[in-house]
Amino acid sequence: MNDLDLTTHRLQPGQPVNLSEIETDGKAFHDDRDAAEEEFEALVEELAEWQRRLYAEGRQKLLVVLQAMDAGGKDSTIRHIFGRTNPQGVQVHSFKVPTAQELAHDFLWRIHQRVPGKGMIGVFNRSHYEDVVVVRVDRLVPESVWRARYEQINQFERLLADTGTTILKFYLHISKKEQRKQFQERIDDPSKQWKFSFDDLEKRKQWDGYMAAYSEALARCTTGAAPWYVIPGDQKWYRLLAVARVLVGTLRQMNPAYPAPERDLSGVVVE
Amino acid sequence: MNDLDLTTHRLQPGQPVNLSEIETDGKAFHDDRDAAEEEFEALVEELAEWQRRLYAEGRQKLLVVLQAMDAGGKDSTIRHIFGRTNPQGVQVHSFKVPTAQELAHDFLWRIHQRVPGKGMIGVFNRSHYEDVVVVRVDRLVPESVWRARYEQINQFERLLADTGTTILKFYLHISKKEQRKQFQERIDDPSKQWKFSFDDLEKRKQWDGYMAAYSEALARCTTGAAPWYVIPGDQKWYRLLAVARVLVGTLRQMNPAYPAPERDLSGVVVE
Repeated sequence: MNDLDLTTHRLQPGQPVNLSEIETDGKAFHDDRDAAEEEFEALVEELAEWQRRLYAEGRQKLLVVLQAMDAGGKDSTIRHIFGRTNPQGVQVHSFKVPTAQELAHDFLWRIHQRVPGKGMIGVFNRSHYEDVVVVRVDRLVPESVWRARYEQINQFERLLADTGTTILKFYLHISKKEQRKQFQERIDDPSKQWKFSFDDLEKRKQWDGYMAAYSEALARCTTGAAPWYVIPGDQKWYRLLAVARVLVGTLRQMNPAYPAPERDLSGVVVE
Repeated sequence: MNDLDLTTHRLQPGQPVNLSEIETDGKAFHDDRDAAEEEFEALVEELAEWQRRLYAEGRQKLLVVLQAMDAGGKDSTIRHIFGRTNPQGVQVHSFKVPTAQELAHDFLWRIHQRVPGKGMIGVFNRSHYEDVVVVRVDRLVPESVWRARYEQINQFERLLADTGTTILKFYLHISKKEQRKQFQERIDDPSKQWKFSFDDLEKRKQWDGYMAAYSEALARCTTGAAPWYVIPGDQKWYRLLAVARVLVGTLRQMNPAYPAPERDLSGVVVE
């Protein structure tokens, strides 16, 4: 097993981020799609084995956060990366527009309820980062409120990390041009039309506002314990490979193991 | 596509059940393991497609309840049947020994919180049926309490069914001899030892009590809306096939479809 480089797309704490200047083209990082797909297949197999060990060990926790613009590939990433793991040990939660009850609490209340327990992989399809992005672009709360959330998020993620959770946050980074292509495909393909919403076009008009909001959120909430990865998303095959490398590389470091039996079983015979 | 027979292992409402007299040997129903495995592969592929449609449609709900004696194959069934579906649309919940907070509520309180929402498949690894089986064998509550639960369960499942949930309940039925074989394998194989617990041997001593408790629970809680299936479990390959047939056959009847777009999309061009 070669070591996997985890740093290629990882942001550094304290560095400014400008998403408009970060590459969305996977071909800038990999020039062989066939080789990438082959490596991805092997990594997905390896991931399934690590997931079994993590679950059997029942000690460590892994939280995977996915954020992206619409059509950025969140659903596709979840399906392909976790499509061969055991659903008993992988809990995916899609955070939607908050309910009245959720809004009656602090913004991390509903998030905290969904973090993974021991032995589990938790996957967030959208997350508490909506609360510093969409609420900012749509002016749903005053700036003083969303701005205070950066530190609240960092403290919250620090709590999770300090109590045994490994946190990986992926921003799937597509270009505005690629989003147009994806939207048009959804419109033109009857089997994909159900995914399309006219609201998506409204959000698309605010592209620059979203890039600014994401850039600041990623910069302010990249910590040693919970870094952001900005994954070039214009090619699905590279996006999947890049996420899989970080996941598997991280699990190799976590190195979960099948636990020893509660006591020596040698010679035990079942009657 | 041939029609799948859903009735082979389905219990009938109002009929007495004696598990000791129900076949655990899959070979009594199928004599060609290779053909069974081939059919299973095709069914699992089909299941993944139905699950995508169910999720896209976002209207119907499917609840799958799994019960079995230890080493009866619950975990294995979940892994193999749902190992290729999208974890975003499949939520597995393993009910453990109730916590103090759970015990402070009625026995269906924690169950109700985990039932699937629209578009979802919910899988229960153990369930509210523990509350009429283990509590009876271990005398954790008086008979008047667990006996009242049959009707409480039927009313609860009726509520779920009446509000759009299709319910499939599988009892994975292994012989006492097969359980010995499985336990011994766990003891003798270092990579499986972590699954073994000496508590399991204590439960094994109460085999007859468990059979009696399960038999009555299955008989009393088989309704038209929520039938039990008793799946012969001694051969893994037949157990998987039999469960897959019922699941896929049921989804064919539910027949979820990709939804139409919110309005006509013809001619829409993304800018």
